[in-house]
Amino acid sequence: MIHKDHPRYESLKLREKVVDAYNKGILAESGMIAHGRGEAFDYLLGEITTSNAEKSVKAAAAALILAKNPVISVNGNTVALVPNEIVKLADDLNARIEINLFHKTKKRISIIKNVLNDAGAKNILGTDHEAKAMIKGLEGPRASSSREGVYIADVVFVPLEDGDRAEALVKLDKLLITIDLNPLSRTAKTATITIVDNIVRAIPNLIEAVHELNNVEDSTLHQIVRGFNNQENLDESLKKISEKHTGRVKP
Amino acid sequence: MIHKDHPRYESLKLREKVVDAYNKGILAESGMIAHGRGEAFDYLLGEITTSNAEKSVKAAAAALILAKNPVISVNGNTVALVPNEIVKLADDLNARIEINLFHKTKKRISIIKNVLNDAGAKNILGTDHEAKAMIKGLEGPRASSSREGVYIADVVFVPLEDGDRAEALVKLDKLLITIDLNPLSRTAKTATITIVDNIVRAIPNLIEAVHELNNVEDSTLHQIVRGFNNQENLDESLKKISEKHTGRVKP
Repeated sequence: MIHKDHPRYESLKLREKVVDAYNKGILAESGMIAHGRGEAFDYLLGEITTSNAEKSVKAAAAALILAKNPVISVNGNTVALVPNEIVKLADDLNARIEINLFHKTKKRISIIKNVLNDAGAKNILGTDHEAKAMIKGLEGPRASSSREGVYIADVVFVPLEDGDRAEALVKLDKLLITIDLNPLSRTAKTATITIVDNIVRAIPNLIEAVHELNNVEDSTLHQIVRGFNNQENLDESLKKISEKHTGRVKP
Repeated sequence: MIHKDHPRYESLKLREKVVDAYNKGILAESGMIAHGRGEAFDYLLGEITTSNAEKSVKAAAAALILAKNPVISVNGNTVALVPNEIVKLADDLNARIEINLFHKTKKRISIIKNVLNDAGAKNILGTDHEAKAMIKGLEGPRASSSREGVYIADVVFVPLEDGDRAEALVKLDKLLITIDLNPLSRTAKTATITIVDNIVRAIPNLIEAVHELNNVEDSTLHQIVRGFNNQENLDESLKKISEKHTGRVKP
């Protein structure tokens, strides 16, 4: 039981959600550790959505609307935190959802599939019932991708992804969108568009941005995507975080 | 199996150790999340011991040598990562080890006690076999402290502690030493001496510093402790982390 007046109440509630997801089999142990890393970076961010994150969200929404075959690749942490929001986003974009787990077991895939189905998802990919193709540069079971999903996607949205898979997907010339609270991570630097924000804030913002841009002309959307510079955005995010905390230091 | 050439090899090995400790019952779920937070801050630190951490270690060693009743208060994360080093440090200092868990169960206490015993510890406190006294300002089972341990200690070394307990112990006028990778945390700011470093590097450094200072005169040791300013040291740590990462940003 967490007191509402605890200085880190919201963060502690999310932590409970993650432990709960672990106990339900949605998360592997290392998924909890990964959540902790995210907590730390969110803490440094002040647990708010910055204007840089808003810029990325807009570019991400434009790219996803323009996509011919958009795919949302989800792992345990994403499904633990925002299952309903992922399904809504996929519906709004007419995108496929594909499960891809770092620590892959049939049992975890089935549990995650059930959570997404309960949230209203249909035709989830990555469940081993469809044709597969291997992603070059990746090893083990997670190298596998769905032939009608990530493999043929032009735009892949992979929140909370690790550096190896992000690099492998970008090498296949996919426009890669990610959410990563660490602006220094390989994933953040590798992706085409990185949203430096907590996924529980970023996905609702993305849903809203998709609504706002849905009827905008393609040429304008292309302009938004082309006008976005990921490394510049990451550098600015980092600078803001840094200024926030060292402002207190006397010269 | 982690490849030796993975850019984050050392960190991933520690992560395995933590998952292993969880599976053995040493850690609660939230201990894994806490480890992840530490990982993130260590990443920002560049996974090295800074000169500021060295300064804190020296002050901590001096304070521990001067202590009349030094106590090392350990939790699951500490025992998961450095059980042998904690026992050696306690031996060298003639300090007591007291177990204090955030998520306290009899089973976890007993498992942790066994790990410490296997590492050569004797007369471990906090196992409910000794007289207890309550620490003011704390709630629940963790408010309890050993009458011959933390309760009467003049110097308490509590690595990886949370803000509430750190504040409660400082209010009791104890000289509080902690290890915390987050220089902004309440624990880091509350403690008398905060070592901003990974515990796996800090404890061996502390053991070495104790050896170096062991035969130094008390007046010199007092000078080292008095000369240490925790807030100044934290501000400098933060500034270094910040400069490290924003050096890349063009003006």
